[in-house]
Parts: sequence; C-alpha cells; structure tokens
Amino acid sequence: MRIGFIGTGNMGEPMARNLIRAGYTLTVFNRTRERAERLRPDGARIAASPAEAARDAEVAVTMLADDHAVEEVAGAMLSTMQRDCIHMSCSTISVRLAKRLAEMHAAHGQGYVSATVVGRPEAAAARKLWVTAAGPEEQVERCRPIMEAIGRGISIAGTDAWKANLMKIAANFMIVSMLETFGEVFALLRKSGLDQGRFLGIINEVFDSPVYANYGRIVAEEKFEPAGFKLRLGMKDTNLVLASSSDFAVPMPLASLIRDRFLEAIAHGHGELDWAALAKVASLNAAVPPTAL
Amino acid sequence: MRIGFIGTGNMGEPMARNLIRAGYTLTVFNRTRERAERLRPDGARIAASPAEAARDAEVAVTMLADDHAVEEVAGAMLSTMQRDCIHMSCSTISVRLAKRLAEMHAAHGQGYVSATVVGRPEAAAARKLWVTAAGPEEQVERCRPIMEAIGRGISIAGTDAWKANLMKIAANFMIVSMLETFGEVFALLRKSGLDQGRFLGIINEVFDSPVYANYGRIVAEEKFEPAGFKLRLGMKDTNLVLASSSDFAVPMPLASLIRDRFLEAIAHGHGELDWAALAKVASLNAAVPPTAL
Amino acid sequence: MRIGFIGTGNMGEPMARNLIRAGYTLTVFNRTRERAERLRPDGARIAASPAEAARDAEVAVTMLADDHAVEEVAGAMLSTMQRDCIHMSCSTISVRLAKRLAEMHAAHGQGYVSATVVGRPEAAAARKLWVTAAGPEEQVERCRPIMEAIGRGISIAGTDAWKANLMKIAANFMIVSMLETFGEVFALLRKSGLDQGRFLGIINEVFDSPVYANYGRIVAEEKFEPAGFKLRLGMKDTNLVLASSSDFAVPMPLASLIRDRFLEAIAHGHGELDWAALAKVASLNAAVPPTAL
Amino acid sequence: MRIGFIGTGNMGEPMARNLIRAGYTLTVFNRTRERAERLRPDGARIAASPAEAARDAEVAVTMLADDHAVEEVAGAMLSTMQRDCIHMSCSTISVRLAKRLAEMHAAHGQGYVSATVVGRPEAAAARKLWVTAAGPEEQVERCRPIMEAIGRGISIAGTDAWKANLMKIAANFMIVSMLETFGEVFALLRKSGLDQGRFLGIINEVFDSPVYANYGRIVAEEKFEPAGFKLRLGMKDTNLVLASSSDFAVPMPLASLIRDRFLEAIAHGHGELDWAALAKVASLNAAVPPTAL
Repeated sequence: MRIGFIGTGNMGEPMARNLIRAGYTLTVFNRTRERAERLRPDGARIAASPAEAARDAEVAVTMLADDHAVEEVAGAMLSTMQRDCIHMSCSTISVRLAKRLAEMHAAHGQGYVSATVVGRPEAAAARKLWVTAAGPEEQVERCRPIMEAIGRGISIAGTDAWKANLMKIAANFMIVSMLETFGEVFALLRKSGLDQGRFLGIINEVFDSPVYANYGRIVAEEKFEPAGFKLRLGMKDTNLVLASSSDFAVPMPLASLIRDRFLEAIAHGHGELDWAALAKVASLNAAVPPTAL
Repeated sequence: MRIGFIGTGNMGEPMARNLIRAGYTLTVFNRTRERAERLRPDGARIAASPAEAARDAEVAVTMLADDHAVEEVAGAMLSTMQRDCIHMSCSTISVRLAKRLAEMHAAHGQGYVSATVVGRPEAAAARKLWVTAAGPEEQVERCRPIMEAIGRGISIAGTDAWKANLMKIAANFMIVSMLETFGEVFALLRKSGLDQGRFLGIINEVFDSPVYANYGRIVAEEKFEPAGFKLRLGMKDTNLVLASSSDFAVPMPLASLIRDRFLEAIAHGHGELDWAALAKVASLNAAVPPTAL
Repeated sequence: MRIGFIGTGNMGEPMARNLIRAGYTLTVFNRTRERAERLRPDGARIAASPAEAARDAEVAVTMLADDHAVEEVAGAMLSTMQRDCIHMSCSTISVRLAKRLAEMHAAHGQGYVSATVVGRPEAAAARKLWVTAAGPEEQVERCRPIMEAIGRGISIAGTDAWKANLMKIAANFMIVSMLETFGEVFALLRKSGLDQGRFLGIINEVFDSPVYANYGRIVAEEKFEPAGFKLRLGMKDTNLVLASSSDFAVPMPLASLIRDRFLEAIAHGHGELDWAALAKVASLNAAVPPTAL
Repeated sequence: MRIGFIGTGNMGEPMARNLIRAGYTLTVFNRTRERAERLRPDGARIAASPAEAARDAEVAVTMLADDHAVEEVAGAMLSTMQRDCIHMSCSTISVRLAKRLAEMHAAHGQGYVSATVVGRPEAAAARKLWVTAAGPEEQVERCRPIMEAIGRGISIAGTDAWKANLMKIAANFMIVSMLETFGEVFALLRKSGLDQGRFLGIINEVFDSPVYANYGRIVAEEKFEPAGFKLRLGMKDTNLVLASSSDFAVPMPLASLIRDRFLEAIAHGHGELDWAALAKVASLNAAVPPTAL
C-alpha cells in the first residue's frame, strides 16, 4: 500500500520508519527538508510538497504540530488526493477542525479518519503508541493495519472522527493534571525537607503506573531537556481542552489552572523545555530552589 | 506480643483482624462498642476505654478519624501506657499533631511511631495496605512485624515521625487530584456524548494503574455507596494538605480548588458518600445529568 | 457632520439618539430593521446595509456585539467608505481585531479610531458613558466632538487604536471581578443568616462607589431581568481578557476563575440574564436558596 | 467614663488618642511597652498588664493582631473585669472566637460587644473608621459613644456579636479581591506597554471610589512601605474568610485563590510589606519587571 506521510518531526519520524519496516511504500514530506531526508536511507521517497506526497497515496497520514499546520496541509492535499483516498490525521487537533476536515474531504469524495496517538517519541520508536481512532467504520478498517504498524493497540472512539480527537485531548489533560499535582507535591516535599526519592517509592507502589514512574522521575530530577514533548505544545493542547470546555459549556477549573501555569512557565522562558517542566512553576511560586533527587 | 488497638472502624477492623491472625494478642477499643465486639469471635479482648486497651500493651495502635480523636485518645492512654511502650499511630493526622505526640510520649519515656497506611477497606482486609512509617529507628524496627502483618510493604519516610504523615497526606492529595481530573473529564465526555467506557479503556492502557482502573470505574458508574472512605474525611485530609501548605508557605492552587469542590459536595449533602463522589461536582456544575457507564 | 451609525441595539440606540440631539445627520443601520426604525422619528435616515450607511459619512460609528459582527460590517463598509473617512469603533472587541482593522482601513486611505465605552444602557441614555479612545492623534481629534456627544468624559489610551480596546477589556474585568466577589460574599452571608441590606450599607460606606451601589443592589435583589448587559456577552468579554492574557503571557487566574463561573451560569441556562447573574453561581454551589433583600 | 485600652499598635494608638480627646479616661496596655508610653503625654495611664488595664474600666477595648492575642488577653482580663463591664472587641477575629468570648463573658456576668473597624491607620487618626458593631442591644448602646469617638459612622450587624465579625471579614475580602484584580490587570498593562496612570484615570472615573483611588495608586507606584496593614495580617484575615467558608459549607474559590497568592508573597519575603503588595504576585508570575507609575 502506498502511503503519503506529512510531518516527520519528533513523533512522525519514528512512526514513518515503523511503517516502512512494516512493508509500506512511503512518500514523505517535512517542512524542514533535512528531517525528511533522514528517512531516505530507510527507503522513503522525499516529496517537495504535501500535495506531491499525497498524490499517489491510498492513505495520506499527517502528524503535525497544531490546527494551523494541519489545516494548511489538508488544504494543499485536497486537490491532489485521489477520490476514495483517506486522510488519516494523527495530530492533536481541535474538535472543530476535525469536524471541518471530515466535511471537506467528504465533499471531495475522499475519506477522513482521526487516529490520534498517546505516547512520547521513545514509545513511537518502540511501536508502543496507543492509537485512538474514529471515523466511518469502513475507512477506519482500511486504516487499521497502518495503525497496527505504529502502535501497540487501538481504541475506537466512534464513527464521528472528532470523537477520537476529544478523547485524545481528554487523555492528555489527565497526564498534564498529574504533572501539576507532582509539581505542587514536590514543592511541598522540597520545602519541608522530605526525601523525594522515598516519596516516589510510595507513589510507585500505590499507583503502580509506568506514566507516574516515568514523569515522577523526570520531575524529581528536573531533567527537562531534551524535550520529548515541548511545553509550548502542551499549552496548545490545554487550550484545546478549554475550547471544548467552552463549546460544550462544561466548567473545567483544573484545566484553567493549568493554562495559567503554562503561561507562567512560558513567561519565564521555559516554552522549549519538556512539558513536564510545568511542575517547575509550583516550586518557583514557593521560592524553593531546584534540587536533584 | 500484646497489642492494644484503638479504633476498629472501616479500616481498623480488618487491620486488627490481620494482627490476630498473625498471632498477636489484641485488646481492642472502639467508641461504638458494637464495632469492637465483632472482633471478639476472632479472639480479641474488648476494653472499656482507650486507657484500658493500652495498659498492658507493648504497642498501642491507633486508627482513628481525625486529629481530634487521636489527640483525645493519646491523652487518655498517656498515663496507663508503660514506659518503653510504643504508640504506633496509623491515622491520617496533621504534621503538627504528629510532632506534638512524639514530644508528649517522649516526655513520658514512651515511644511514638507514625505508621500511615494507603489503601481502602478491601485492601486492608486483603493485607494489601502500603505502610509509610517514620520515627526513631529502633522504635520503627520494633513495630516492623506489626506493619508487615497489616500491609504488603513498608516505606520509611525518615526518623522524624511527622515525615510519614506528610508523605501520607501528599500521597492522598495525588489520589484526590486524580478524582478531580476524572470529574472534569467525565463531565466533558458526558455532555459531548462520548462513550465513557471506551475512554476508560484508553486510560487503562495509557496509565496501566490499578488506582486509575478502580476509581475510573467507580466514577463512571457513580457507585458512591457504600463508602469505602467517606467524602467528609477526604475533605479533612485536604485540609491537612492545606495546613502544611500554609505552614511551609507553599502555594497549592490545586489543593485549594479541591477544597472548594469538597465544600460544594458537602453543601449538596454528599458528605457521607465515598470520596470519589467529589467527581460529581464537575457534572453538577456543567448541568449534565448523572449517567451510568 | 454626516455620521453613519451601524448597530442600534441596547447601547447603540441611545448613543445614536444623543448624536442626533447634538445636531449630527445620521444614517443608521441595524440587522433587525425594526430596532433601527425606532430612530426614524428622531430624524435618522434608515440604510438597507452597512455599506449604504457608511457611503456618505464622514465618520462611520459601529456599536456591535462581538468581533465577528464588527469584522463582517467593516469588510462591507471598506469599499463604500470615502478616503479620509474614519471608522470609529465603539464595540468591545479583541486587541487582535483592532490591530487588523487599523491596518485594513489605513491600506484604503481611511482612518480608524477605537472609542470604547463603559456604562450600561441607562448611562448611554443619560449621556454618561465614559469613553476611552485611541488612534492617530489627528483622527481622534476629529472624532472628539462625537465622543463628547455620547459621554461625560474621554480618556486617551494612546496613538495605537488597540490600546483603547485593551484598557476597556481591563476595565470590564475589574467590574466582573467585583461581581464574582459579591457572589461569594452574598452566598456566605445568606447561608450564615446575615442581613444583606446591612452589609450593603457597610460596603457603600467603605467603597463609596456608584458601581458598587448599583451592582450590590442588583445582586442582593437578584434582579437580573431585563438584562442591561447580557451574561453571554460578559463571557465574551472575559474571553477577550483571556486572549490578551495568552498573547502577552500573563497568567490571570482570577480571569480564568470567572470564565468557569460564566460557563456554569450558561450551562444552567442563564446566558440571557444580566451579567450580574454571574453572582448566582456562588449561591448555586453553596446550595443556598435565592433570597430577596 | 473609664476605659481600658489593650493593644496600641498601628491602629490602636490613634484610636486610643481619639478616645482621650473625646474626654475618656484611659488606662492603656501594650505588649511592647514603648508603644503604650507614646500615649502618656496625651494623658493615658500605662498599665503593666491587660488585667490591670481592665480592672477599673467600664469598657475594656481590645485592638489586637489575631485570635491568639485576643484569646490570651481576654483570659487575663476575665477575673479582673467588673460585673456589668463590657469587653468591646475591635480586632478582626474569627466567628468562632467571637462566639466563645460572648459566652465566656456572659458566664462571668460581663458584657461582650464586637465593634470591628474598617480603615487604615491614617483613617484611624482622622477619626474616619467605619465601625460595624453587634451584640446585645443595651450593651451596644452603652458602647455607642465610644464608637462615635473613633469613627465616622456605625453599622449594626445584629444582636449576636459574631455577626459583626463576619461582616468585617466579608468587607475585608471585598478589598483584597480588588487588590488581586488590580494585580492581574497591572501585570497585563505593564507587559503590553500600556500607561498605568491613564488606566487609573479611567478606573477613577468608572468606580469613583476612594478605595480604588487609594489602592490603585499604591499598586501602580508599588509603594508598599511603610505598611499601613501588613501583608501577613491580610493573609490571616483571608484565613478567617476561609474558616467561615468551611464552617458554613460555602465554596469561595476567589478566597482560595487569594490565599495562595498570599502564600506566594510570603514565600518571597514580602510578609512585612503593606498587604497591597499582594498585587506584586501577578507581575512576578508574568515575569514583568516592577515599574513606577
């Protein structure tokens, strides 16, 4: 099967590589061309534009930073994508855009599936992403082998594509809430002189979760570089939660609190750090000096 | 070894039973005597007062609701406890009270160990509590077999007893933050028409944590009775976090947010439900009707 | 001087009437034509479109609900407005749109002045609005007599038009913060059985402010209809604050809190009440029944 | 009439001086004796203890920092105060303590009136405090001339003394909410490059309130020394609001937000500044440098 793959950044690159390994023929595009070139040795063809990458594809996969990028790329692909070809969108985008993309592609006789992924770059490389997909059943089924090639499992959110996006946004929010919680707790432990390592020991026993183990260690060690997922993108995702919170008239005070924490982190110049650096804000506010585990 | 055990409520009763099974001789006291009587068939002797329960004990274990109860009981035991006898306090109490108890018992030549437990009544029955202990090393070691008889493992928080309390308070806060997060997310899912069961499937894959699995199910099913841990006690624990936050001058806006959510739940008459009912507040605010999974 | 006046709603109608009284020749347009017709007896000419209302005007005044409406109207006027004619925009719009309008009109050789107003419909009728204006000095001076005809005084925010908008947004935020404060305090007074009227007496002595006197009474009496300024528009204004807060990376937790309160009010069906009904939310959360003064 | 006056600090000293000017015979006590001595030239007798100051008084006035101080002093006065003598408590204390004091004095055949004051030291000196009083009618009437001698007017909160305290606490909360609002707005204005002085001009026109004028200027100029009312005392007052919020089960998220802001200010060493320095926190979080008007 021929796949067009647009967006080979931190996440896209290992995902594309796994698709090649699974036997797919890939034409890739990335705005910064050097990043796309890294996939040439693996056997990818490099396209000069999104439109070109999508031209002969049966499925065009996009893995981009935000609504703006996806909207631009989708617009460019619209006229070159074949009828019956499917746009499989893996990016974390808004519910509104997902709805619009589904309509737009349908109007051109093309398919649209949201196939969001949870996991950091290491998980992408290890084929351990969790995929949450939604869209018309037949289209989702056609994309299923592709999803299987990039992840360790798939959840189906429904037949409306946007539902996968909302579930992804909600799952992200659960992770970032955990980061805020770690931030406040560690500020308290540090200022009162408690041992963070021992506390993490308890947390690992109680929660027994790889997510807590991983982020707990990152926050305790304050190891926010290199960024697996940039803080300013985490802020973007929180704005997506808030947008849905507004659209559905659901007050979400914790999401609001996190928004302001992100703004504080960005105001202090931490936008390019890993989003786990959100936890720094609580220590900043408590005037506790950063400390290693 | 002879143990006095004061407080045989939801948590204390299964803990006491496990101690008897492990071969200890127990004299138990509970304010509502009928609850203590349930342990007679297991072999416990029933005392008429905390002072009597503590009289011949080598270790006096307390498992009570709050600072007030522990302070009252400790005051009553002080004169009857033998020198070198240890007060092993399992209740979730304030850092301030833990400090005071340590001093008070030391002044009477008695020992004091904080041995806080994380886990719900089912976990207590199954000997699966996680114990976080702190106190003078020799005293902690004397209590270790008792802790082993009630839990599946032990963390040592330090040689100052209060450190175990602060770690317990902090661990609790991590759980209640998860409840608030679930509450906001489920309100959003419900109001937008998404499937909660499918979402929990994703969360279980991503977090892979028994705590998320257990509470996620409780919140989705809104099964808040019978209460494993009462909401009004969860509020008390949140006030303990806030007290430490004040004492150490560490702003904790998420803890403050949760305080107000608890107050709202209590204002609406949910104080006797399981503390997971905290998650109801977000749905209440969003005017979404309660729904089953 | 010939003025085109677009938007003769709750605020626009009395403003337009005051302009006619001051001797200006008005051509008015309103989407719901009946509302525009009310000004015919005063001597206004009724236009069939914004483009027509702006055609012969020396100044085109807009007083509309939100960014969307202003952007649409401005687009329509752009080709009919004469060179050197000024668009004087009184609506509460975003900083971003104000910047764009200034550029757009300049590119067509037209002027643009932001002339935001603070005050409710009664104040508009009584010519008691406070005008905050900004834009190129010469243009502001040409509009000054018009501003004088609708208000009791004028502040100049700077030579960049958007600065008037940001000051207006900020001033609005100060009022809505007061509403939230009244809401929380009155919930506490009501639930504890204190006399709201006596409390208002104190507040009036301490603050000695017509704004506190007016809104304090509205909140105490829960007289939220007819709406002087609709709650859903108040929510829009709060979103404008939050947008600027994001753009300038300034955490504003109180603005975030108010956002969620507005969402709760809207979720409970209060969007068409006066925005002072924001204060209801605190009583709702505290489960206190509404009560009169 | 003979008055015992305990607590001649920033507020108490000018209040006591006004009582002497009004013709009362004062015996004063202050923990730091030098502060009491300042009143000797005005004609005050200096007592060596609260008990002595209260011995011959018809009314014993207390003006102290917090619950702890008032409770200690009241305990000391209890045995020396005559039957029928009234304790007139002007301090900002908790509802709980006010209830306890009323009972305690009643049990000794003594009276108790809460006569809280709103205003800063300058207002106290100028006899411009606003007094909110509550207690048994006859006792309040006996104290009325004293209140008239220290303030410009009196509100009666009810016949239960604690109601005056709750009204005072609530009025204080309204002021501190304004400070938080100013803080967030000024952070936004500063970071976006707007003129604070012009903005204050608008605020003064809109609110037309001496409180806004005064604090707006203090916050804009960042003139937080000397402290008219210390930030750490403002934190104490906010804790009183939160205590009542808990007692009556009224969620008050804005009060909670302010609590955390105070903690942040204290963590950064600003506890001894004027409480208006609360507004610094927003600028700190936004990483804007402090700037003068």
